[in-house]
Amino acid sequence: MRWKVTLSYNGAKYLGWQRQIHGPSIQSTVESVLNAMHPEPVTIHGSGRTDRGVHARAQVFHFDSMLNLDASRWERAFNSMLPRDIHVTKVEAVTEAFHARLSARAKTYEYRIECGPYNVFEAETTYQYNSPLNEGALKQALSCFEGTHDFTSFCANPLDLKPNQVRTIYRTELEKRDSQYCLTFIGSGFLRYMVRRMVIAVVEVGSGEWPVERVKEIMAAKDKQALGLTIDGCGLYLDQVFYTQEELDRVLGSTQ
Amino acid sequence: MRWKVTLSYNGAKYLGWQRQIHGPSIQSTVESVLNAMHPEPVTIHGSGRTDRGVHARAQVFHFDSMLNLDASRWERAFNSMLPRDIHVTKVEAVTEAFHARLSARAKTYEYRIECGPYNVFEAETTYQYNSPLNEGALKQALSCFEGTHDFTSFCANPLDLKPNQVRTIYRTELEKRDSQYCLTFIGSGFLRYMVRRMVIAVVEVGSGEWPVERVKEIMAAKDKQALGLTIDGCGLYLDQVFYTQEELDRVLGSTQ
Repeated sequence: MRWKVTLSYNGAKYLGWQRQIHGPSIQSTVESVLNAMHPEPVTIHGSGRTDRGVHARAQVFHFDSMLNLDASRWERAFNSMLPRDIHVTKVEAVTEAFHARLSARAKTYEYRIECGPYNVFEAETTYQYNSPLNEGALKQALSCFEGTHDFTSFCANPLDLKPNQVRTIYRTELEKRDSQYCLTFIGSGFLRYMVRRMVIAVVEVGSGEWPVERVKEIMAAKDKQALGLTIDGCGLYLDQVFYTQEELDRVLGSTQ
Repeated sequence: MRWKVTLSYNGAKYLGWQRQIHGPSIQSTVESVLNAMHPEPVTIHGSGRTDRGVHARAQVFHFDSMLNLDASRWERAFNSMLPRDIHVTKVEAVTEAFHARLSARAKTYEYRIECGPYNVFEAETTYQYNSPLNEGALKQALSCFEGTHDFTSFCANPLDLKPNQVRTIYRTELEKRDSQYCLTFIGSGFLRYMVRRMVIAVVEVGSGEWPVERVKEIMAAKDKQALGLTIDGCGLYLDQVFYTQEELDRVLGSTQ
C-alpha cells in the first residue's frame, strides 16, 4: 500500500530534508521511525528537498508498506516516535500512480522577515533584519518575479546546470503582521536557492539599496554570477504542495 | 562602576539561569562574555533564577566593572558575543545601592498555552496542550490566587523550606490570542515552581477535571504534597522585574 504523508517541521536543528552522513536530516529522522516498524529499510520520497535550517508547514512524502495499519494509526505511530520539532498532520492512502515529487504541480513558499527589534524567540524561525523596509518598494520588487521567466540568475551553482531554468510564478504576496513581513511565492517549481535569492533581491529594493530596475536587469542577464547574494534559510517555509489543478485554482482564485 | 543589564533569552537550550557544571546556563554564558573582557572573573547577579527551559523577555542582572565603557558600548559588546538566543536590550549605569535581586519589588510572569493544533514552531516556547479549555473556568481559577496567601502548597520541596511562604499576587490576567491563552501573574515574589504549579491547577479547572473549589482547598492545606503536579517550563516567561513602586503602579493602574 502506498501512503501520502503531510508533515510540518521546524528545520532549525536539521541539515535539511535529504539524508546526510554528517548529521540529522528530516528524511533520516522520519525513516528511522519507519525502519523501527519494518523488517527491511524503508525509503521515503519527498516532494522536494529543503535546505539546512529551512522549515515546512506542509511538506509531503510518500512511502510503500506491507503493514496493515489505517491512516489514523500511521499518524499516531509517527507522532509518538518523532521528535517534537517534526509533526505529521495527515496520512492518506493513495494509488501507486501517486509520486510525491513527480505528481506535484505547484508549491507555495513563504519567507518571514522581522523589521522590528531583535527577537530571541524567533531567531531560528524569522529572519532578523531588524531595520525598516519600504512596503511599496517590496511590492514592486516582488511583482518582477510574477509570470514565466528564465530564473538562471536566481539559482544555485552547480546543482542547477540543467538546460531549462524557466519557471512560472503564478503569484506573489506581501503581508504585514505587526513589524513582520511575510513574502509568499506560488509557483510551478523552484530551483535550488531560488526563493532565498529572490528574497534578498526584494530586500535590497525594500531597503532602498537598489532601484527596482536592477532586479529586472539581473533576471535578464541569465547569469548565475549576476546576483551573488543569498539570505539565511531560517525565514523560509515550504508552505504547501499542490497535487491537483483544483487545489491550485482554489488558492489562486481566493485572493486575486 | 555598577551596571544594570536587561536581557531576553530563549531558555530552550539552557539548564536555567544559574551556573551549572553539567551544561550551559544563561548566567555562565553571559559571564563568559564578561570574562573575555576582564583580567579577573566577573560574577553577575540576577533578579532571581529561572529554571531549565524557562524564558525571559526582560530578566535583569547587575555586575561591577572597572572598564571605561559607556552603556551603548556595553550593549554592543554583549550582543556581538552572545549566542543568538540571548539578547541584551538595555544597559544602565546604577549606584552601588542597586542590587538586581534585593532591590526587586515585584515581578511579572507569563505562561503560554496552545489549545489549537500542535505547532512545531512553538514547541519550545508555548506549552502544547492542543485541547480546548474553558475561558470562564480559567478566569475563575486564576482569581483564586489574587491577594496575599500562604503558597506552601504551590512551591517546590526541598528548596523552599524557609518559614515564610506568604506572597502577594497583585493581579492575574487571561488573554486569548487566536487559539492560545496567555496567563499573567504580577506578584511581590515567587517561590520555586510556584507559577508552574498555579498554572497546572488552573488548567485542571479549565479542562473541567477539577471544580474551582479544589484550588482553594489545596491553597488552604498549606501542604507541599497537596498538589503533586507541575507543568513543563517551556511555556513560562519572566516578563518584567519592577524596581520602583512607580513602575509597578503604572502597570497595575493601566489595565485595571
